[in-house]
Amino acid sequence: MYNFTTRIDHFNYRNNATYQMRYAVSDEYWNPYEGPIFFYTGNEDPVEYFILNIGLLSEWAPEFGALVVFAEHRYYGESLPFGEESFKGPDYSGFLTSEQALADYADLILWLKMNLRGARRSKVVAFGGSYGGLLSTFLRMKYPHVVDAALASSAPFKMFPGLSSCETYFSAVTAAFEKSSPGCPDIISESWPILDKYGSTPEGCRILQDTFRTCLPLDPSNYTSFRDWVRNEYTYFAFANYPYASDVVGHLPAYPVKVACSLLRNKSDSSDLSVINAVAQAMNVSNSTGMVICNDVYEAVELDAWNFQVCTELVQPVCGDGVRDMFYPVEWDPPVFSLGCQERFGVTPDFTKMVETYPIPKLQTASKIFFSNGNLDPWAAYGLRAAPTKDTRYLLIKGAAHHADLLFTRQGEPPSFAAARKVEKKAIKKWIS
Amino acid sequence: MYNFTTRIDHFNYRNNATYQMRYAVSDEYWNPYEGPIFFYTGNEDPVEYFILNIGLLSEWAPEFGALVVFAEHRYYGESLPFGEESFKGPDYSGFLTSEQALADYADLILWLKMNLRGARRSKVVAFGGSYGGLLSTFLRMKYPHVVDAALASSAPFKMFPGLSSCETYFSAVTAAFEKSSPGCPDIISESWPILDKYGSTPEGCRILQDTFRTCLPLDPSNYTSFRDWVRNEYTYFAFANYPYASDVVGHLPAYPVKVACSLLRNKSDSSDLSVINAVAQAMNVSNSTGMVICNDVYEAVELDAWNFQVCTELVQPVCGDGVRDMFYPVEWDPPVFSLGCQERFGVTPDFTKMVETYPIPKLQTASKIFFSNGNLDPWAAYGLRAAPTKDTRYLLIKGAAHHADLLFTRQGEPPSFAAARKVEKKAIKKWIS
Repeated sequence: MYNFTTRIDHFNYRNNATYQMRYAVSDEYWNPYEGPIFFYTGNEDPVEYFILNIGLLSEWAPEFGALVVFAEHRYYGESLPFGEESFKGPDYSGFLTSEQALADYADLILWLKMNLRGARRSKVVAFGGSYGGLLSTFLRMKYPHVVDAALASSAPFKMFPGLSSCETYFSAVTAAFEKSSPGCPDIISESWPILDKYGSTPEGCRILQDTFRTCLPLDPSNYTSFRDWVRNEYTYFAFANYPYASDVVGHLPAYPVKVACSLLRNKSDSSDLSVINAVAQAMNVSNSTGMVICNDVYEAVELDAWNFQVCTELVQPVCGDGVRDMFYPVEWDPPVFSLGCQERFGVTPDFTKMVETYPIPKLQTASKIFFSNGNLDPWAAYGLRAAPTKDTRYLLIKGAAHHADLLFTRQGEPPSFAAARKVEKKAIKKWIS
Repeated sequence: MYNFTTRIDHFNYRNNATYQMRYAVSDEYWNPYEGPIFFYTGNEDPVEYFILNIGLLSEWAPEFGALVVFAEHRYYGESLPFGEESFKGPDYSGFLTSEQALADYADLILWLKMNLRGARRSKVVAFGGSYGGLLSTFLRMKYPHVVDAALASSAPFKMFPGLSSCETYFSAVTAAFEKSSPGCPDIISESWPILDKYGSTPEGCRILQDTFRTCLPLDPSNYTSFRDWVRNEYTYFAFANYPYASDVVGHLPAYPVKVACSLLRNKSDSSDLSVINAVAQAMNVSNSTGMVICNDVYEAVELDAWNFQVCTELVQPVCGDGVRDMFYPVEWDPPVFSLGCQERFGVTPDFTKMVETYPIPKLQTASKIFFSNGNLDPWAAYGLRAAPTKDTRYLLIKGAAHHADLLFTRQGEPPSFAAARKVEKKAIKKWIS
């Protein structure tokens, strides 16, 4: 792992302070003067997470003679511009923006090209999944002199205000469950009133707390956080619904949606306690390694960076009526959302920032970018449906959940994964030839 | 004239302060719901300057039914983020960057589209000359969802360190003089030793001061500033070498190079004083209106903004040996240049900023941009020589000096000007249809 010194603020001449950004390099298959640079545009996790999960770059490296680079996104992992104080307030966290991150990546790539022997004329391919797919797309579009081509997997270009209905996400998760396990959404729907009933009394909360092994005591005042945690776990099962065990979100078995749904169905009787027990079993699906001894149902402090981004530019309006989706009703209330952001981070969400800054969702002038989505992935609901221009490609991968094409190849994959990677590789090869 | 409230710093969530940016709008020929928006990306002058000189937008407006907008670049004219304190130090001037200016323009255009009746779906064409041509190009490339096409006239894409030899500019000015008035560069060359001789003594300086009517007293300690002023005037004659009287730089007659050269030739005898007198006559060419009562040979305070930009990102390495060019020897000494910038503005030039930030000079992914240059314009030496991509156009206009195509149509223009504008108009029309 290396550190790269870059500016905290790339966009003015007032603040020249720098920070250390982490990145990893593998030159195992690097063919200097010939091979390209494969650059993963890190998103909202420590860089190790991507190194462990994103296998595509190293799997392609031998054939391309590529140098493989993983960059850590500012304010994640150890790339903290102000160390432990990085979230002390907007004076510290205020430099956490996607544009600053893109400038970090451009800076690092240009530095590598100038300083690594045989890299000066190397073509650069940016890879990214999810938010990282947005970053690889925008890096290619805004810095075409730095990045020659990109693979953007499961990039949610339409997650931002005004681009999709706020019902999109929960509806898509519900559809993903229905697809993998028909009828399962109805079972989940019916469980909320029972959970709510128990969540409304101290005695009921104690039962939930014990059954779900929550790390902290539950009581009616914090029950809704618990409920949100249950809901969010279901959404994770949907987007990490891979045909093999994975560590992308928690430690999930193969086909987590199917596994969870079969546990939900596997009730001894129809009593409330059986339902609660079945839901708890389903939640335990993300503990496939048995390492989790209790469930932290409150947002972890480590999520500060992501929540700050959600509270500034990466605003995802989410709502549901609990009828067209399998969850409980949720309203999208921008003023309330803004207030929460003000209280937590001292910032006001900028609802139009993304559409002002980036050419989404049309990507009018995109070129040499491969866009992929998985047909099982609820995030695909925010994705493109076709190549935006004639110089780009688009592929919807059958049987794939969230950015499955970027993950290490595993046994148990449907042949559509290998076929997709082949098409992607061919396009990238052509673009950088 | 209107004011638009936009952020002083568009790129972080720490500083939400705003300022008032000036812009002008003409809806005289505006055809709402149908016509495009013609947007001049203001460069290093007050917006009135562009309104007075840049006629192309309003001349095309009737045919296109276009709304015409002129925007003032931050830190110029009255668009001063901190009023009179805007240059008090990097804490104030530090937000003067091209990227911030582009974000201002994107912000203004999107606001106009959302708030003017019938503008929401209007196509937007950015126009710019010189540095403004860089801005219109980069606005189109970095904000393709905001700007649909651009006309970049005489944009010096290769003026930055590493992209051209430092001899480029003075050589090009010399060539422009030679082309307009063969032999004239030799006359100018021969004048410097005489000026230098007089500049080296207090008595000689007094003669120069009287002959050239300098506003402030000259003495050997400030003679080099005087000499730079003389040189710079020649460069202005070259780039504003239009076939009609113009106010683009000073108040110049038609064909200022020819006029100046004929005055230089028109010496009563070959004595030093005759030469000095002839040079003074040549300098007076920029006083074609007779309004200038003395010559301010020191850099005006109003140039703070431009010099700050030159001292940060718009670094133009300039040198000459006085042999291959018609001037006196000048060295390009980056450390000395940096020191001057530190002393004057408290900033260090970033020699690589432009090539890191923008896809220059290759403009790999440019589309729907018309690039033009004039074959008489020394700045064309920094320009493109051909269209960078198949979706762009390039034209070298015969008989044209600096961004002549953008200026109001005048009597005395060669037919090549009208022909060029016709080709440009046709391309733009096609791109926004």
